[in-house]
Amino acid sequence: MSYSEKHHAPAGVQNKPIEAEHLLNNLRWRYAVKKFDAGRKIAPDVWRSLEHATIHAPSSFGLQPWKFIIVSDPAIRQKLREASWNQSQITDASHLVVFARLAKLSSEDVDRYVRRIAEVRGVEESSLTEYRNTMTGFALRPNFDSGAWAARQVYIALGVFLTSAAMLGVDTCPMEGIDPAKYDEILGLGKTGFVTQVVATAGYRAADDAFAQHKKVRFHERDVIVRL
Amino acid sequence: MSYSEKHHAPAGVQNKPIEAEHLLNNLRWRYAVKKFDAGRKIAPDVWRSLEHATIHAPSSFGLQPWKFIIVSDPAIRQKLREASWNQSQITDASHLVVFARLAKLSSEDVDRYVRRIAEVRGVEESSLTEYRNTMTGFALRPNFDSGAWAARQVYIALGVFLTSAAMLGVDTCPMEGIDPAKYDEILGLGKTGFVTQVVATAGYRAADDAFAQHKKVRFHERDVIVRL
Repeated sequence: MSYSEKHHAPAGVQNKPIEAEHLLNNLRWRYAVKKFDAGRKIAPDVWRSLEHATIHAPSSFGLQPWKFIIVSDPAIRQKLREASWNQSQITDASHLVVFARLAKLSSEDVDRYVRRIAEVRGVEESSLTEYRNTMTGFALRPNFDSGAWAARQVYIALGVFLTSAAMLGVDTCPMEGIDPAKYDEILGLGKTGFVTQVVATAGYRAADDAFAQHKKVRFHERDVIVRL
Repeated sequence: MSYSEKHHAPAGVQNKPIEAEHLLNNLRWRYAVKKFDAGRKIAPDVWRSLEHATIHAPSSFGLQPWKFIIVSDPAIRQKLREASWNQSQITDASHLVVFARLAKLSSEDVDRYVRRIAEVRGVEESSLTEYRNTMTGFALRPNFDSGAWAARQVYIALGVFLTSAAMLGVDTCPMEGIDPAKYDEILGLGKTGFVTQVVATAGYRAADDAFAQHKKVRFHERDVIVRL
């Protein structure tokens, strides 16, 4: 079954909650891996599930202003590493995803999404005119930085990816220390309308990654939670 | 046990993976709730777990440039609703979180984080000088829009929140259709250094929320995943 056949029918899906302590345990287990076990690969079915989890990420209006570029080619990975302060995760992780975003949101992007809604839900595009107009008004309004908006949406997907990986026992490292312009060049994004935003590497921690032993540092609850 | 006592010891925590199909099922179940059951509240222990999951969200350098403002006061919720295009979720959801971010990242923010690292890990601040300098160089570099950076980090936390809620069987609706300046005023953020970025409401879907029956719309896998 293709992704689209399998995943477009939420009606009737029942949630199977997990224990809160189970969720928190796996989130505590997560950390930003500094050294991956270069010999250990994520099983294909687990990786596919992570891809699907990421595709499920919500976005403003559902517009999904992103592409997820999965780079397996070792030569490209090596070039990307050079555009990433030579950080070892870029080549040593089992998988690497470049989270790219729309450089700019256009009415064509809205139209493409409206067509997709009509297709998935089996409705006439004309029935979506009001929704299309709302979105177009949003996308094209004066002083709206749609590139920055798209960047923020990508970070929702990043959060979904990192959390989902932790639930599946897959280690990750989100990476902002990259040269996005060089990435765009290496990945050939040139005229695609998409630009590099952020990277995530995934795989399994090396046994000797000292960072795995560090205590997680979070501010006191009283410093991040405000109750009104 | 306080949050900080309980959560700062990842060393030795074992991951307990869940089945991929279980993860995907709960993500399929999730949708942006339009109409909450106003009579149904999230149990306090479940809500606490969601707070803790969100506090665990990763951020660039671990700097956590955010505050999570949980608004329970009905009068404030009513005012926020008026600053949110009168969307019903703002008052009808069991819980409402305003994800606020640093307006601007300063060296004081870096220092505060360095002090916290020293405290949690039991090391001298002086041993963190190099790390501090790296972060300060990042935070204060020319042409760096630290407010936009902080906004993106907040969206990671939003992604963690939404995914975690889905794992716990809690319904949510992320909401960008708000007036952030009015929110700042209502919440009294004035001189705190934090500004409103985005909102999430959480609770349980109303039995008659028609949106729960809509098919989830995602682009074809071939349109969002690129393989290199």
